[in-house]
Amino acid sequence: MSVHETAVARYFEAWNAQGAEDIAKAVADAWTEDGTYTDPLADVSGHAGVAAVIAGAHEQFPGFEFRQLGEVDGHHSIARFGWELVSVADGSAPVAGFDVIELAEDGRIRRVFGFLDRVPTS
Amino acid sequence: MSVHETAVARYFEAWNAQGAEDIAKAVADAWTEDGTYTDPLADVSGHAGVAAVIAGAHEQFPGFEFRQLGEVDGHHSIARFGWELVSVADGSAPVAGFDVIELAEDGRIRRVFGFLDRVPTS
Repeated sequence: MSVHETAVARYFEAWNAQGAEDIAKAVADAWTEDGTYTDPLADVSGHAGVAAVIAGAHEQFPGFEFRQLGEVDGHHSIARFGWELVSVADGSAPVAGFDVIELAEDGRIRRVFGFLDRVPTS
Repeated sequence: MSVHETAVARYFEAWNAQGAEDIAKAVADAWTEDGTYTDPLADVSGHAGVAAVIAGAHEQFPGFEFRQLGEVDGHHSIARFGWELVSVADGSAPVAGFDVIELAEDGRIRRVFGFLDRVPTS
């Protein structure tokens, strides 16, 4: 895997980690200490801030997991990729989005620039 | 126009400015002094670096202009949008891409994260 693909894999591990302890560990593996995450609904920095956003998404969408959509397109220290939030029970995917990430020299994520392509209609 | 749309409009003014003096002025209007531009073929910072990339694109594609594709999707200090490089003579568009920008507090661009969706086949 490229450095970009490895970073994206760690990113999804963090989003799909279960329980506060595993989320905290996965976030620390994926993001730098001062790493940021920004999407239309959140704008946080630091491991605790990112972990809180992930825990909040789990509360809002229990039984769902984040899955990568398509390939990772990376160059220099940046990459783009799509994702869906998929119901493990029935495969429905009410939310889809698109992220650009910037990596630090150690390969961890320093910045996430997140956008939403599909959101629940109800 | 939103702050995001204004920034994107200035971005295209810079890409379509003609002549070293006008490019330099448009780049200074669009980017902060320490602003960066990164795409698969370039990774520069500062007004002179950005201006050199724009001048290089004009040399490679004389008679073309950069046009926004679709809407600007912005939130917080970031935005995404698409673009095409269009021949003014025949309307062909051999290159298309997609950028995420981050804005400074003064509304100018601090970072550009650029990706290519279509490139010339020959």
